[in-house]
Parts: sequence; structure tokens; C-alpha cells
Amino acid sequence: MQSSTKEAMDKKNNQMLKRVITGCVGAVILIIVFFVSNTLVLNFAMALVSILSLYEMFVITKYIKHIELMVLSFVFAAAVPFLASTTTKVLMFLIFLLVFALFSMLVLNQNRYKLEQIGTIFLLSIIIPFFFSNIVFVRRLENGEVYFWLIFLGAWLNDIFALFSGMLFGKHKLAPTISPKKTIEGAIGGLIGTVLGFVVFTFVAKLIWNVDFIIWKMIILAVACVIAGVIGDLSASVIKRQFQAKDFGTLMPGHGGVMDRFDSILFVAPLVYCVLNFTSLIK
Amino acid sequence: MQSSTKEAMDKKNNQMLKRVITGCVGAVILIIVFFVSNTLVLNFAMALVSILSLYEMFVITKYIKHIELMVLSFVFAAAVPFLASTTTKVLMFLIFLLVFALFSMLVLNQNRYKLEQIGTIFLLSIIIPFFFSNIVFVRRLENGEVYFWLIFLGAWLNDIFALFSGMLFGKHKLAPTISPKKTIEGAIGGLIGTVLGFVVFTFVAKLIWNVDFIIWKMIILAVACVIAGVIGDLSASVIKRQFQAKDFGTLMPGHGGVMDRFDSILFVAPLVYCVLNFTSLIK
Repeated sequence: MQSSTKEAMDKKNNQMLKRVITGCVGAVILIIVFFVSNTLVLNFAMALVSILSLYEMFVITKYIKHIELMVLSFVFAAAVPFLASTTTKVLMFLIFLLVFALFSMLVLNQNRYKLEQIGTIFLLSIIIPFFFSNIVFVRRLENGEVYFWLIFLGAWLNDIFALFSGMLFGKHKLAPTISPKKTIEGAIGGLIGTVLGFVVFTFVAKLIWNVDFIIWKMIILAVACVIAGVIGDLSASVIKRQFQAKDFGTLMPGHGGVMDRFDSILFVAPLVYCVLNFTSLIK
Repeated sequence: MQSSTKEAMDKKNNQMLKRVITGCVGAVILIIVFFVSNTLVLNFAMALVSILSLYEMFVITKYIKHIELMVLSFVFAAAVPFLASTTTKVLMFLIFLLVFALFSMLVLNQNRYKLEQIGTIFLLSIIIPFFFSNIVFVRRLENGEVYFWLIFLGAWLNDIFALFSGMLFGKHKLAPTISPKKTIEGAIGGLIGTVLGFVVFTFVAKLIWNVDFIIWKMIILAVACVIAGVIGDLSASVIKRQFQAKDFGTLMPGHGGVMDRFDSILFVAPLVYCVLNFTSLIK
């Protein structure tokens, strides 16, 4: 009994170690990408993340049997991150092409595809590349090299603080039927950590880039990011649950698949872009 | 036996009469809308057509039980036709809001909604209002009052010529498992009729508006409209078939629902808008 408890503990520690190591490797990759983010490398990186995420979705939903739809979805996903400076017209044309192709396939293979599969593939093919591409759109704004960090801090500070404060203080379940490990204490820790992180970043941004963020706007943005991140995270959990999968993949040891790590980014990226479009965060 | 054949014939004639009368009423409404199409009346008309079409879709798919999703979809559909002159930023913001609301509902009611329903509702909520709104976008272009007609001629000339040439010469089934009444002869008649209609319209446009269309571009456009119209029509048929419905509704006697009449418009409208965005049809 004791040895099996020890084994379980070892396994848990091992898992956490993996998680931390993968996290550190990821952080290093992110910093490297940041340093070349004023080039097309960022667009290619987002195309890659989108395609990997879509691939994981096709596996989970078992739509992978519709390989022709997956290829179509990949082609579309590869194009989207390069549309940062494009017009509504090009955007509409691309979406029209995607829809027209999907429906042509539905008509030609009415027994093979169901409308609901076409709908789900359309949803995933639109939101995954478009929402991730908001990272590129944000980076291409004036002061984009500063704003860039808001997305990752907004999504991942919450993930990290929620994980550790949940482990330390977690008692009350947050959403037991969706994500049994999440606790209310974790959620509160994530929120406080993210807000503090944004305050610290306000000073860092002043120091490094001489950019003067308006602190109350930063605090509101931090709260909004936490909400968007949690909804993204829980959405991913619901999808996994509905398709009886534990993780989206195994590409990131200790984390799961790409979508397991990027699920909170999915809604935070467009949120940050929209906020920056409609208000200035800088004095 | 003879009397029942006579009854069937009477019923068929009666049905055709209804169809023609409804068609004429529709044409009169269209002409009235055209004369005020430089005002917001056109935007409101398209919002109405979109909402009615979405309502029919919610009934057919039995998603009508998710009344909260339907209302969300209606609100979005009502906004889209007014975005003719908007920027990508506003567009992205609206789509983000729609997606965020849909996923929040999925998270809050994971047992009530399935990802595939969310996907289908997203697909319908995007393409129905966006694609119909291309009528508004086309009308707001320079020479929009001329281009406006290309959409309706491109979709409905084919419907009319295909129907009558199918009735006169129809022998070989076009797509028996999707739409058993369609014949190859009807399709050819529709194609020829639409091309001829576009050629006639070229002269009409010169006479009425002094607009000089390039005739070979008009012929290619006519062929493209027929293809887009047929795919739209067949897509609607597949959807009806997959959900075991004969028509989308009863609002238009002899035609069926709004979607039964507008299904061919669905892909023709964005096609015409995209073509006009990327090439000039005028000398």
C-alpha cells in the first residue's frame, strides 16, 4: 500500500517535472519567436500552431476519416495568418471559397458527410486560425512588440497561478462535471496572479520600451483576459469530454497537445486585439 | 382511375398557378425594393430575409428547442446587413462576440448542447446573413443599381429556365438521390437561358443606365452564377433531405419557404460581389 502511494507520488512529481520542463522549453521558443516576430516567422509560426491544433481537433472528433476536408481546412488555416494587413474584401472572398468548397463536397457526397460535420469543420477552420492570427495582427500594430506580451501573459499567467494556488489551497470544485481538477481557490489565485502580473508588466514596459500603460485599464484587461481564458479552457475541456478524450495530443509532454496549451490563448488573443482596436491602453 | 388522374392534373396545375402568382408577387416586391434600394430599406429587407431563413433552418434542424441560441443568431443576423461600409476590425469583433457567446453557452450547458450543434449554428449564422448581405454590398458599389440585377438574374433566370425546359424536354435525371425532379435537360436549359438573359441584360443596361458591360465577361459570369446557383440549390436539398423535410416552410405558396426561393441566391450574391471586387465588368 505504502509503496503504491509512493509510486503514485513519484509519478505525480515526474509528471509535474515534465510539465515544468516543457513549459520552460516553450517559454524559450516563445522568446526566440518574439525576437524575430517583426518578420514573417511569426506568421509561419501561427500557421503551424493553427494546423497542429486543427489536426488535433480532427483526430479527437474522428473527422480525420474525411481527409479531403482536413486538407481543405489546413490550406485555409495556412493562409489566414498572412492576412494581417488585408481588406474585408479578400477576407470575404476566402470565406466564400471555403464555404463553397465545403458545400460542394456535401452535395457530391451527401451520404458521407452530414451538415453538422460541415458546420463543425467550418467553425473550427474559422476560429482556430483566425483567433490565433490575432497574435500576428496585434504584433503588427504600432507598439506591437509590447502588446504582444499582453496575450501570453493574459492567458498563461492565469494558467500558472491557478495551477499552483489550486495545488496549495484548492478545496472547492469550480466545475466538477467539466474539469474536475479546477478549484475555486485556483481560479481566485489565477485572477489575483494575472492582475498582479499586469501591474508588474506596466512597470516593465515603462522600463524596457518606455511605454506608459494606463494602470486601471490594464487591471480591467487582466480581468477580461482571465474570463476569456477560462471560457477557452473550459470549452476545450467540454469538447474533449464530448468526444471522450483526455488530452488533445501528446506533442507537449506534461501538457498534452498543442490545443491543451493554447486553449486559453484562443479567446484571449482576439480579445486583446479588439480592445486595442477600440481603445488606447497608453497614456 | 381517370377522375383521379384528372384530380392529380388539376392539383399540379393549381400548384403551378400558385407558383406563378407567388413568383409575380415576389417580382413586384423586388422591383419596389429596388426603387428604394439606395436607402436603408434594402438593409432591413436583407435582415428580414436572413432572419426568416435562419428561422426555417432552426425549425428544420429541430434546433428551435435551443431558443436562446436562435435569438443570439437572429441578433447577429439583424446586424450584418448594416456592415456594408465597415472595416475588418468591426467584423472580427462581431464574429468574436458571436463565438464567445456560443462557447460560453456550451460551457454552461455542456449536457444540453453538442459541439456539432454549436458548429452548425455558427455556420448558418455566418453564411446566411453574410451571403445575403452581399446584395447590399453590391448595391452600395458605384453603378450598384445595375449590378444589383446581376444577382437576381444570375440566380432566378436559371431557376425559371431550368424549370420550364425540364418540364418540356426533361428525360435524364441530374441528381436523382438529392433532387429527383431535376433533369440534365433542365440544367442545360437553365444555363442557356441565363447566358441569353445576361446578353439581353447587356443591351438593356446600355439603354437604361448607359452602362457598357463587356459581353464576354458577362457570359463567363452567367456560367459561374449557374454553377453557384445549382450548388446552393442542391445544398439546400441535401439539408432538407438529411433532416427529412420536404420544404423549408410555407411562407411562399407554390415555392415553399424563404430558403426554397433564396437558396440559389445564397452563393450567387457573394460570387457577384467578389467578381466585382476583383475585376471590372464595364468597358
